[in-house]
Amino acid sequence: MGNRVGKHTLKFEKRIEIAGFAAVTGKKEGEGRLKFDRSAPDGLFGEKTWEKAESAMQREALDRAIEKSGLPEQEVRTVCAGDLTGQCIASAFGIRGRSMEYLGLYGACSTMAEGLILAAMMVEAGFADTTAAVTSSHFCSAERQYRYPLEYGGQRTPTSQWTVTGSGAVILRKGGTDGEPVRTLHITRAAVGEITDYGIRDVNNMGAAMAPAAYRTIRGLLEDTKTAPADYDLIVTGDLGNVGGAIFTDMFGEDGVRLSNYDDCGKMIFDSARQDTHAGGSGCGCSASVLCGYLLNEMQRGKWKRIIFAATGALMSPVSAGQGESIPGVCHAVVIERGE
Amino acid sequence: MGNRVGKHTLKFEKRIEIAGFAAVTGKKEGEGRLKFDRSAPDGLFGEKTWEKAESAMQREALDRAIEKSGLPEQEVRTVCAGDLTGQCIASAFGIRGRSMEYLGLYGACSTMAEGLILAAMMVEAGFADTTAAVTSSHFCSAERQYRYPLEYGGQRTPTSQWTVTGSGAVILRKGGTDGEPVRTLHITRAAVGEITDYGIRDVNNMGAAMAPAAYRTIRGLLEDTKTAPADYDLIVTGDLGNVGGAIFTDMFGEDGVRLSNYDDCGKMIFDSARQDTHAGGSGCGCSASVLCGYLLNEMQRGKWKRIIFAATGALMSPVSAGQGESIPGVCHAVVIERGE
Repeated sequence: MGNRVGKHTLKFEKRIEIAGFAAVTGKKEGEGRLKFDRSAPDGLFGEKTWEKAESAMQREALDRAIEKSGLPEQEVRTVCAGDLTGQCIASAFGIRGRSMEYLGLYGACSTMAEGLILAAMMVEAGFADTTAAVTSSHFCSAERQYRYPLEYGGQRTPTSQWTVTGSGAVILRKGGTDGEPVRTLHITRAAVGEITDYGIRDVNNMGAAMAPAAYRTIRGLLEDTKTAPADYDLIVTGDLGNVGGAIFTDMFGEDGVRLSNYDDCGKMIFDSARQDTHAGGSGCGCSASVLCGYLLNEMQRGKWKRIIFAATGALMSPVSAGQGESIPGVCHAVVIERGE
Repeated sequence: MGNRVGKHTLKFEKRIEIAGFAAVTGKKEGEGRLKFDRSAPDGLFGEKTWEKAESAMQREALDRAIEKSGLPEQEVRTVCAGDLTGQCIASAFGIRGRSMEYLGLYGACSTMAEGLILAAMMVEAGFADTTAAVTSSHFCSAERQYRYPLEYGGQRTPTSQWTVTGSGAVILRKGGTDGEPVRTLHITRAAVGEITDYGIRDVNNMGAAMAPAAYRTIRGLLEDTKTAPADYDLIVTGDLGNVGGAIFTDMFGEDGVRLSNYDDCGKMIFDSARQDTHAGGSGCGCSASVLCGYLLNEMQRGKWKRIIFAATGALMSPVSAGQGESIPGVCHAVVIERGE
């Protein structure tokens, strides 16, 4: 079946290069364990509402990624974007005003990986030479939508995660273009996940709801490509946090597989004990800003040669939770490699 | 740039065949101007909430499309799905339980075209032989989310549209597979739209907000492919309704272009005068059910040989409207042809 390896894995025949990337976050994220292109001094980004602030943050991340790519903005033909707000308004108003084809996505916190896969697919299919993937989340727009009014100051359970105020953007470019240098980072494989629901109903434990989806997608990718975890310098999920991350490693443990080189964006971004973020970070912007602020930078510096970036999403809403539904998870994975 | 024609138009090199399609709607839609695979006797589809009903309707449309394709369900590798509910729960819970890779989309009422384009791209890129696109809307889940509680019985303005309770599903299949007949309907071209915002703020006039996006995408497609409206047997937007449709034809009129073969899914589905639907139908399920219940059937019967199906979306939410924002529109277009 063409460019498919095994049952689940997509193989890119073209060289899909990462031409630029950037992460922009709020203040708390900048005070955590990682550094980003910019961490704003407050969460409003010069706007009057949290939703408009999220759009502004997304605009800035995309602007910075384009600038760092060295490509003119008009080269970017298509942008794949999505976020957590109802009807994805952070993305629609974030992208509005640009001359880019708009593919709106909803993958919950898996959106960065979904966007990368679709942006890469546009290039693979020969439909564009340059595409972009961008996503965001904002603690305040998410909190008041999913949980309580911010002023209420609701207590959080130990398994709850802290929605990251952050946005990440990646510019993809077809490699081998005349007159351009070879960019070292590129996307080689990917896997689109299936919806996986183990019946978790606790909306304060998204990690547990998403862990089985992460296990399923990554196990499929490893089987298809006949690789072991040790063949990757890093396998990173985003964002299972402490609780979901432990379930995820347990599931591989039951298969007799030890994940020695595993980490999770939700665990990496905050210093949870110091910053009171309980089980870790979450939100589309969590894995996106860790990818674009930390992982890709470190790959460029030579720390890792090949990683699996597997973003996880919980496909629920306040309405579905209120109607007693469980929380379906999904996980999309992308293999990113460094090399000529 | 590979398979791109002009600036905006994607050209499929492979033969992307429509292997199956089906539309399932509510009662009112079945009493309108068109007939569908099934129009349920009530809007609940055996469920207890409108949102669960919408998921059930989506499941049924996909089941019927798969059955009509004659392909085993496990052949369908990837499904592109989206809807209007916050966090797209109608789709997530509609697809849950199937062994299909899930690409969640949010394109508002443009979702059917967006899904078709991405499902076709999966085949074009060689990532799958068989994919699906499905979307839905439900009058009751939409009304209480966007407007008022249903029990309130709010008055509607003359420019308002009636959200269709309906779902459409299409199965795409790579043509030329050994042992299979040639399927006559196939997707040959497509255009992904750019976000277009003319500053319309009236949430009861979505047609006006979306018309400029439809004009922009279709004009681009015609220019790129050096075709005139008369080169198509039908150009169909979905869902501009009476008001948006008139603006759309006016915009072409200002270019000196007469659209003699133009219609709109929002105008086609209801008998507006008799059914009190004001400016026409709307919702992701409007263009999807008109496509899958009427347009594709009539193409198969020989009524039209080549059509442009251009679904339009208003990328707003109750939150963005409440914050005084205008309504950005987007329109994605697909060229569908009949022939060996």
